[in-house]
Formats: sequence, structure tokens, C-alpha cells
Amino acid sequence: MNIDSLEKLLIHEMKDLYSAEGQILKALPEMIEAATSPELKTAFSDHLKETHKHRERLEKAFKMTGFAPGGAHCAGCEGLLKEGADIIQSIEKGDLRDAGLITAAQRVEHYEMAGYGGIIAFARKLGKNGIAELLTETLEEEGQADRLLSRIAEKAVNFKAMAHA
Amino acid sequence: MNIDSLEKLLIHEMKDLYSAEGQILKALPEMIEAATSPELKTAFSDHLKETHKHRERLEKAFKMTGFAPGGAHCAGCEGLLKEGADIIQSIEKGDLRDAGLITAAQRVEHYEMAGYGGIIAFARKLGKNGIAELLTETLEEEGQADRLLSRIAEKAVNFKAMAHA
Repeated sequence: MNIDSLEKLLIHEMKDLYSAEGQILKALPEMIEAATSPELKTAFSDHLKETHKHRERLEKAFKMTGFAPGGAHCAGCEGLLKEGADIIQSIEKGDLRDAGLITAAQRVEHYEMAGYGGIIAFARKLGKNGIAELLTETLEEEGQADRLLSRIAEKAVNFKAMAHA
Repeated sequence: MNIDSLEKLLIHEMKDLYSAEGQILKALPEMIEAATSPELKTAFSDHLKETHKHRERLEKAFKMTGFAPGGAHCAGCEGLLKEGADIIQSIEKGDLRDAGLITAAQRVEHYEMAGYGGIIAFARKLGKNGIAELLTETLEEEGQADRLLSRIAEKAVNFKAMAHA
């Protein structure tokens, strides 16, 4: 029992996402390497740059609260990234693995969308509008990344992977 | 290396979601018990009934493939549900814990939305339209459950939780 105010719950959630972004930063280079389609490699590389930005935005948001980031480990994100690693282990490099990588990455994007959505709602309730606005930019970028992955899957990857069926 | 066709990737993803739905079935009674707001308790109880239906739909979908459900453990969902259990441990029963439970539950909903979205895309590519249609019903219900949780959070829980801040 250590969360006894909405502000502490907000900080708890921000620490969770900060850990998630850090884990994603470590996982993305492996996903870029594991992907085949140039479009997917570029999407993952661009998202790696964005993830650095997302972590910096969280650091800025922490400064607005007086609390420090760190000290939490996001178990949810760990499980999701493990699924991505399993996909790499289970499927040979090629368009089929790309299709699997996309579904794994979209689970991570959705995780973050749910996480940031909650944080923004809590920040607004607490009148911390600076945090809400800053992290709304991140939420929008996570949504865009998810939609881009859907478009890549729809246009190219899944269609080519079909040849393996 | 054991996934070498889009059909096997589809089955892999269906087994993953089947494991997830099973884990959620076990976790929801504890979340109902842990919640305070009657509206949230009802939403979780209704979702428990839906989750039984979602598992049955996956069993029907497996019958259309000739493969059996089971034999997989969804690491992603395990991590997400662990976060919900941590919330229960960290926050005393009341409106603040309800706010935390909602954000944990929304992460799970988003996980399932991403998972079913991928499965439906793969099933369509493989011409397995029966599976795609069946699981589109589930995808829509997961989306509705997520939106209902947002409405409960917006209207009642977060607002009351603010008093703790």
C-alpha cells in the first residue's frame, strides 16, 4: 500500500511508461535487424528516434512534478517484448517474420496508447495541463506509428507472406 | 524455427489470444472483488461473461482450421495482468484503486484489440472469412469494453479519486 493519492498514481503510471520506453529503446535495434522489408526497417528506425523523444518528454514531465523518473520495471512491456523476441526465434528472416514482427510491435503500440491515455486523463484531473499537453503529442505519435504498421502490413508484408501458406 | 507459413502464424496468434482470454477469465473475479464503484463492478462482471464468449468463439475458429487450441502461454497478457495485481496490492480499496484498475484493464483491452486485429488481417489474407467475421465480433466488443471503461473513468472514478490528491 504505497499509492494514496491521484498524484502518486500518476507518478506510478509515468514511471511504468518510462520503464516501457527504455525497454523499447533496447528492443528496437534488434527488431530493425530482424526485419526484411525496407519500409518496415525504416518504420522501426523512425520509431526508435521517436522513442528517444518520448523518453525525453517523460523526463520533462517528471520535472514538472518534482519526482524523479526511474525505480520501476514495467512487467507488461517486458512480456510484450518477449513475444516479439519469440517471433524472431520462431520465424526465419523474410516477409513472414515481418508480418509477425508487425503484430508484436502493434501490441506494444497499443500498450503505450492505453498507458499514455490514462496518464493524460489523470494529469488533466489534477490540473497538470503542461504534462497532459506534452504527453498528448506522444500519444498521437504512438497512434500514427500503429496506423503506419497497419498500412505496411496491409499493402506489402502480409500479402507476400501469403505465398508461404 | 517452427512457423513457416501464414496459416501457422495465424494459429500461433490464435493460441496466444486463447491463452490471454483464459488468463483474463481467472483474473477478472479478483478485479470485480477489488473494485468499489458499482458501475465498475458491473462493467467487469459483464466483461467476464463476454470473455467466456470470446474463448468459445476462438474454439469455434480453431474448429475451422483443424488445429486445437491450447499449448501456448501468452507472456504479454501475463505481464499486463501482473500490473493489475500490483495495483490491487499498492492501493487501498476505494475510488483511487478503481482509477488504477481501469488503467490496468484498458492495457489488457488494448492488448486484445491489437491481437485480434492482427488475427483478422491474417485470416482475411488466407481467405478464412468465417474466422475473420467471427473474431470481428470479439474485436468490436473489446473496443466497446475499452470505451465503457473510459466513460466510467471520466464520469466518476477519476473525479472522486481527485479528492485524495
